[in-house]
Order: sequence, then C-alpha cells, then structure tokens
Amino acid sequence: MTSIPARCGILTTEEVAITEETDVGTILHNLATKKWSAFAVTTAYLKRAIVAHQLTNCLTEIFIESAQSRARFLDEHLATTGQVLGPLHGLPISLKDQFCIKGVETIMGYVSWVGRIADKNAVLVDMLLEAGAIPFVRTNVPQSLMWGETYNHVFGRTTNPYNIHLTSGGSSGGEGALIGLKGSPLGVGTDIGGSVRIPAAFCNIYALRPSYNRLPYQGAVNSMAGQESVTSVLGPMSNSISGLKIFVKAILDGRPWDLDPLVPRLPWNQAAYELVEHGSGGRLCFGLLLHDQHTMPHPPIIRALEAVREALTNAGHQVIDWSPYRHKELYDVQWLIETADMAQGVLNECSATGEPFIISMEPKDADAALNAPPGQDPPQKPSPFHPKHLTTYELWKLHELKRQLRKDYLDEWQASVKRTNTGRPIDALITPVAPFVAPLHGKNDNYFYTMLFNSLDYPTIAFPVGFVDKDKDISLERIEFFTPEDRSNHEMYSPETFHGAPIGLQVATRTQEEEALLGMMEVIDKALRRHPMLR
Amino acid sequence: MTSIPARCGILTTEEVAITEETDVGTILHNLATKKWSAFAVTTAYLKRAIVAHQLTNCLTEIFIESAQSRARFLDEHLATTGQVLGPLHGLPISLKDQFCIKGVETIMGYVSWVGRIADKNAVLVDMLLEAGAIPFVRTNVPQSLMWGETYNHVFGRTTNPYNIHLTSGGSSGGEGALIGLKGSPLGVGTDIGGSVRIPAAFCNIYALRPSYNRLPYQGAVNSMAGQESVTSVLGPMSNSISGLKIFVKAILDGRPWDLDPLVPRLPWNQAAYELVEHGSGGRLCFGLLLHDQHTMPHPPIIRALEAVREALTNAGHQVIDWSPYRHKELYDVQWLIETADMAQGVLNECSATGEPFIISMEPKDADAALNAPPGQDPPQKPSPFHPKHLTTYELWKLHELKRQLRKDYLDEWQASVKRTNTGRPIDALITPVAPFVAPLHGKNDNYFYTMLFNSLDYPTIAFPVGFVDKDKDISLERIEFFTPEDRSNHEMYSPETFHGAPIGLQVATRTQEEEALLGMMEVIDKALRRHPMLR
Repeated sequence: MTSIPARCGILTTEEVAITEETDVGTILHNLATKKWSAFAVTTAYLKRAIVAHQLTNCLTEIFIESAQSRARFLDEHLATTGQVLGPLHGLPISLKDQFCIKGVETIMGYVSWVGRIADKNAVLVDMLLEAGAIPFVRTNVPQSLMWGETYNHVFGRTTNPYNIHLTSGGSSGGEGALIGLKGSPLGVGTDIGGSVRIPAAFCNIYALRPSYNRLPYQGAVNSMAGQESVTSVLGPMSNSISGLKIFVKAILDGRPWDLDPLVPRLPWNQAAYELVEHGSGGRLCFGLLLHDQHTMPHPPIIRALEAVREALTNAGHQVIDWSPYRHKELYDVQWLIETADMAQGVLNECSATGEPFIISMEPKDADAALNAPPGQDPPQKPSPFHPKHLTTYELWKLHELKRQLRKDYLDEWQASVKRTNTGRPIDALITPVAPFVAPLHGKNDNYFYTMLFNSLDYPTIAFPVGFVDKDKDISLERIEFFTPEDRSNHEMYSPETFHGAPIGLQVATRTQEEEALLGMMEVIDKALRRHPMLR
Repeated sequence: MTSIPARCGILTTEEVAITEETDVGTILHNLATKKWSAFAVTTAYLKRAIVAHQLTNCLTEIFIESAQSRARFLDEHLATTGQVLGPLHGLPISLKDQFCIKGVETIMGYVSWVGRIADKNAVLVDMLLEAGAIPFVRTNVPQSLMWGETYNHVFGRTTNPYNIHLTSGGSSGGEGALIGLKGSPLGVGTDIGGSVRIPAAFCNIYALRPSYNRLPYQGAVNSMAGQESVTSVLGPMSNSISGLKIFVKAILDGRPWDLDPLVPRLPWNQAAYELVEHGSGGRLCFGLLLHDQHTMPHPPIIRALEAVREALTNAGHQVIDWSPYRHKELYDVQWLIETADMAQGVLNECSATGEPFIISMEPKDADAALNAPPGQDPPQKPSPFHPKHLTTYELWKLHELKRQLRKDYLDEWQASVKRTNTGRPIDALITPVAPFVAPLHGKNDNYFYTMLFNSLDYPTIAFPVGFVDKDKDISLERIEFFTPEDRSNHEMYSPETFHGAPIGLQVATRTQEEEALLGMMEVIDKALRRHPMLR
C-alpha cells in the first residue's frame, strides 16, 4: 500500500521525487537554493496527502488554496529579497486536529465541536508561520484524544498505511498514517500517554515526545484542560531525525517563552546536542529494557531490541540490561490522575449533542453504539474509571505520590553509574513502545511502555526498526505469564496477522535533555543502518 | 532593638565585626583567605542568633555542637588541602523549619509533628553541605505556613526586630527576624504567597522568590503537598544582594536537576545576569505600580516608590507607570486553588492532637482558642474557604483559568514595548510588597501584592528602602475607597505606630529570569544608595 502514492499516476515524476526525499534538511536546502519552489513542494505534498487520505482516511481538513497562496508568497519573498523568510521556509507542515487556526474549525473528534471556528491561531501556528512553514492539512484523532487509536463520529476511522486491517495508532493517528505514506514531510502531534510515539511505531516513522511544556501548547485545545500534573506535550513526527531536530530548533529559536508562559526559558542547546555531557558521544552506555515484567512484547519487538543491542555493541557502545523499577506504580498513578474527574469533561462534550461516548475502538462496538436507540445506553464495558470522582485533597495525594516516584526513579537512574563503564549513569534507555506492532482495530489497550515516560517526564523518541517477518518472528510457547494482560497479549500474536507491519522502539533520556536525545538518536540510527535488521 | 546584639556584651569585638559584615561575598572571601576561621564565624553567628532569639523568639533549633564541629572540619580541610570545600565554604546558613535534616525534628508549627525525626536530608541540605555551608539554626514559622505572620502552638510568636509590637511577617518570619538582627548571613525560606518577601520587607532585608522549581524543594515538608499549580518555592534571604546571588549560583552550579526531578535544567546564566537581553543594563525601563486599585498603600510605601522612581530616573533609567492588569483575578484564582481542599490537610494535622486550628494570628484570638474548653470550638471568624471542597473537574477548571490569565499577562507585559524608549518591553516591574509596613500582630491580612507574582510565577526580589518617618509619612485624608479592605487599611495607619519600621518594595521580571533580576536588583540598589531616602 505504501507504494501506491508514487505509482498511482496522480503525482508527476518531480512530485514523486520531492515527496520521496525524506530528509527535511535536504528539502529545506532545496527550497532555499530554489532547486524546488515552495509552490511545487506544497502542491506535491497536497497531492500526496490527498492520496494518503483516500487510502487511510487520515485528514480532517485540506487547505489547498491558502497553502498554495502562501507558497507563492514565500517564493516571491525569496525571489525579491534573496532571503528565506525563516528556518522552515516553504516547508509544508501537517497539524493534528488540535492546533487552532484562525477562521478554521477545530473538531478534535467531537460532534459538538462541528462549526466551532477559532478566532485566533494557537501559538505553535503563529510560530510556524513566522518560521516560514506552510500549514497545509490537519489530521484525524480519536474522540477525546485519550486512545491509542484513531476513530470518531465525525471523520470515522484512520487505518494503517501498511495494512488496512491494522490501526494507525493514536491519538496522533492521522499524522502517523499521513507521514507513513510520505504525505507530509513534518507533522505535529501531541502526547500524554504515547500519542505521538504509538502512531510513529505503528507507521514506521520517527516522533519526539518532549518534556512538559518545552514546546508551546498555548492555544491548542485538549481534553482535560487544566490537568497539569501529567502534561500533554506537542511533538514533531517525521520520516527523518533531521525533521525532528529542525522543528525543535526552529521553535526554540523563536523564543516560545515570550508567547507561552509555561515554556521554560531553555534555548536550543547545541553543546547538549553534541553530547558534551555524554562523553561527546564517543562511547555511550544504553540501558535496554526487554520487558516490564507486566506484558511480554511480541517476538518481533524482542527481535528488534536484540538487533539494537547488537548494532550498538558493534558500534563500540555499551548496552546494559535495565530492570523495570516501579513501572507499574508510575503507570497507575498517571492513570488515576487522568481519570480523577471520571471523564466529566469528555462526557460534557458528548452530551452536548448526545453522541455516544466511545468506550471501545472496535468496529463492532462502534456500530453497536451508533445504532443504539436514542436515549438508550450503548453496550457497556467495565468502566475504566475510579469508583468515584476524586476530591481536591485526594488528587493532591496522587500528585505527591507521583512526585516521589519521579524522585526515586531519578535516583535509580543516577545510581546506574555503578554499572556502566563510562563514568556516567546510563546515557539513555531503550524500550519497546508497545508489547505489539500495530494491532487489529480496537485491540490497542496497553500503554504501559509509553506512559512510563509521560509519568517520569523523560523526553522520548520513537524510531523505526524494520518490519515483522512471519518466518523470523514465529510464535513462542509460553506457560507462565506475568499478568492476565500478558496472557491475552500473548494469545493475540500471530505471525501472519502482523507480517509486514513496521516495528518501532523508543529511546528516552532525563527531563529536558531533548537536544542530547536527538544527538543520541542519530548515534543509534547510524549504528542500526549498518545492521541486517534494516537491510 | 537592632543595636542590642552588638552592644549586649555577649559578642567579642571580632564577633561583632564578623556579624556586622553583611556582604556575603566578603564573608566568603575572608573565610577562603583564612582571615576568619569557619569556627570563629560560626561561633559569632551562633552567639548573635541566640541573642536574636531572646529578642524575637525566632528560632526552633540551635545546632551548636554539630555546627562548630563542622566548622572545625572545614578549617582543617582548608588548612590541609589549601582548597575550600565548595563555593559556600564555612558560611553559616539558617533554615526555615521545613527543610529536613537527618536525625532532627521538623515541626512546621504542628503539635502533632513534635518528635517526628527526619531519616534523611532535604535535597537542599545535602547540596548546602556539598557546597561547604554550615547549617546552624532553624527558624520559626506559623502553623500550616499559610499566614504572613509567625505564630504556632509549639514555639509561640516571633516578633519584629525593630519593634516588638509589630509582626516579623511570615511565613518565613523566623528568618526575617533573625537576619534582620544579623543573626545569620544567609537564610533559606519558602514562598507561596509572599512568605520570603513579606518578612524581608518587614525586617529590612533582601529576599528572592525564584520561579517554580528553579531551586530544589525535594525533601522539604510543606502544607498542601501535591498542590502543584501554585508551587511553593524556596528562596534565599540575606542582608546583601550578594547573599542572594551567591546562593542561587552555588545551588545551580551543583546541578540540582540531578537530585530533584522537578528542577528545570537551567544552569546559572552569566549572560543573563550581565543583562545581555536587557541592553546590558545601560538604560533600563522599569514599570512602577503605585497601587493595585484594590488597596492603597500607606504613605511610607508611596514615599518609597516615588523615591525609587526618582533614584532610577536620576541614574538615567526610564520609569513608566504600570496599571494593574487583572490582578484581582490572578489573586482570586490562586486563592481558590489553594483553598480548594477546604484546608483538609491542615485540619488533619491539627486533629491528630486536637490542637486548635489557628484562624487568626491576633494575640487575643490565640488566647481564646487555646483556652477554649476541650471539645468546644474556638471563637469563629468567617471561614476563608470555599463553601465546598472542590472536585477534580472543578479544580482543573481553575487551573485552566490561571493558565489563561498568565498568558494574557505575558501578552500585556510584551506589549509594553510600545510605551518604552528602549526597544524592549519593560525590563522589570516594581511594586509594593504589602500596602503597609510591618503591622501590629494579627493584622497582616492583605496578600494582593505578593500573590500576584506567585500566580504569574515571576521571580521577585523584596528589597529595603529606608524606614517610616512619622514627620514625613503623615496620615492623608481620603474620602473615596477602592474596596472595604482599602478603607480598613486606610484606617489602620498611624505615623506613630509605625515610626521607625522598615519599608520594603519588590521588583519582578518574567518567569525564569532570576539572573537578570539579580542584575537589575544591583542596578536599583546602586541608584537608591545615592538617594536621600537611604541617607
């Protein structure tokens, strides 16, 4: 399916060439040197995005006229002044349906938001325009955003670009599918429990979850606005690491703290990116978490983890095993905080029109809910929520617990200096994104691996590591299981179902080490590209 | 009263000389060059602190043996190695009764905490020890910390070092009184609504309220633990600006983010301190807020503000009037958040022993409460709390409102670029700390001016600007009032009551501009020292 955009005949040869160039640095270079006009690049991506939409239902808005007219303006600017407008001059950028654009609806998967027109841009949108980017499409999300898949009652379901039977992931699943099909060079999603990393892993792309508030969220809509303990963050998604890096640097160079009071006053740190605090990257030590003692990942994930270990070791780095340290507690506390209002905000939005509250992303459940007679409840699953809506005092106790868990984890990380041969604690930690590759629709119900880093607030990049191979990734016999979830996850695996699906992993560092993380991601990528796993 | 420590005969001439040296940089220089031994300095401050305690009841613990023994250790270290142990080598430091020290009680004004021995140091304490400092006393606080005065049922009341009838302020009122009497060269307090700035203003010293989490709070106890929206912060208090600066730099140089997961990865920024983003300090523009349209400050405060205006103008800087912009809303939202649990945490601590919950710091109310028959409620004042304990959903709505108010205020600040002649928005904002100087005990009930900057999270320094003079600060006739609080505040003023009390103001900059704020504080101080206000 991923080859359809190039061979469907809708794109010209040049448009295929433009959209197959995945390195964002190269695209920007070609724009700045006038090899490609912004108009040509924008038109190429508009066409490819529309093809991607026909394949996966990934878009919610397409701005053909405004994007092309902005591209013309940028081309004229460059022709007249000889200067690019900013560091993202002429780059088409896709946005999750959360980032308000003046004069345009932002629907975020709620029927009741149809017709709600923003009266101003989100800070991110203003900054992208200032940097010379061209917002050209917006992308689909699940109702409420609080799912690792993408389905709602306004735009329907987004599917995986590699296999229509599999999910694209979520909540930034429209971005995942779009970028997976190279329908956008760079997109912006958000992540409170894995929402940029899950679609990245399921769709074979890169995505960065930055630290809380490092990038400006101001003016973007969200569920649970005001829930500030586990902060949703915005992050770039792209086919290249250069896409992530260029985006972060461009936004930070624009002084987001002057526009969003929550953004820390942390400019782009070039020394950190060059890994000055990590031995200049010459010899790094990575922790490797094979499983969390809660759910054993499927065979392809384990194969990918072992390939990364081998690739990094071959490249002269150290890899040490990492044991889960209170991961379940970190997961539980985040879950309890996020559900402390019993989804009251979400239910309010649903009840405004009477649309069913989605309690499962499975197609059959969705049909049943939509076809339920008016006034009658859709089929119920056990409630994922607390027995009660928490009081302020009870919520604060959870915050206190979360803070202590973060402290204890930091101490554990720092103490790893005793186990490395670098004189430093581990430089980064590599783990699964999920215990599975993209599952069948409605089956993504395990967020343990991603939520760990939301709870800790560690910046994390999801990255691609090849594809499921039914001959290599055979089912394994297991008799004992960590948990009931572990057993049901084991039973879900079948090499045939997942054959050809992308495999993704994630790498994390300590809070606000985004630049170092990007630098280390390049080290990992370089090592992996020499490994047979990536052919 | 402030002259008693020097002339009471308890301190030797050298001890008087040591403790009258208020510049912390000079003290550290004299320690590093062995002009003064750490033992001599520590002993001098121990003696003076004990005198201060007899005058104001400012201490809760005095560590004579451990402080002197640590001083001897540091002297030996310097003699043997020729090197100081760290940037605070040999400096005695006083700590508010919130910073846990292993093996010592931390009582925080609660009867039920008597006997509660810490099993480890707060991160701050560990970092101070690492930096070579000598914790030597701990200082008094109000029950629950949530008052701008200092009184509790364990240690009683701390009084003002200039006038026993006036309050020392709070909640870091023990520090204020102690440092006001030069019984400590540097102390650490905390501030969630003015708690370092109020005692600083009332006791004639400097205090810094840094941005949320800039300095490591981990391991300090607190009321409302887990309330993370308006974060209590720790800040230095000292007789010199150099004390504040040296403390901040020493802590940041110790990489607090490796020990406290909430501390932003922001090292000491020398360029910011040198005001690179503020025209290198050559010509600054200050906003000046005379009043907040809610409570008009008493005549000495207005006189001090006008003196600052004159001093800065004389020094070549610009001063423009600043109007209150949604200050009442910023105050209200913080108050609603802080009281959202109906003080449940505080009431739990009180009910553990049955000690009365303090509802007023007035001596007569305190007596009545303590003498109430067991089981009978003490005399009630109108409850300062919500009619109900808020739910999570209701609390999140307040967080959302606060965030938007912060955004709007930042926009207002940035828009001031149109009114300055520097090409920049105002560099800093100067306002009253309170609408009064230190009031009579039980009368400090107005936190509008300080809470503004907690709610906005702007770093703020309180600084001394002379003393009330009954001949200059005469009562003014007023007929119209902004609010009932304004009228009662007006009626509270009498030149005779406050004659000789210190006057303090505060200066604030944008979030995480601590270094620039310190640099600008030096500019203000230099200008003020040439002005007749400070003789």
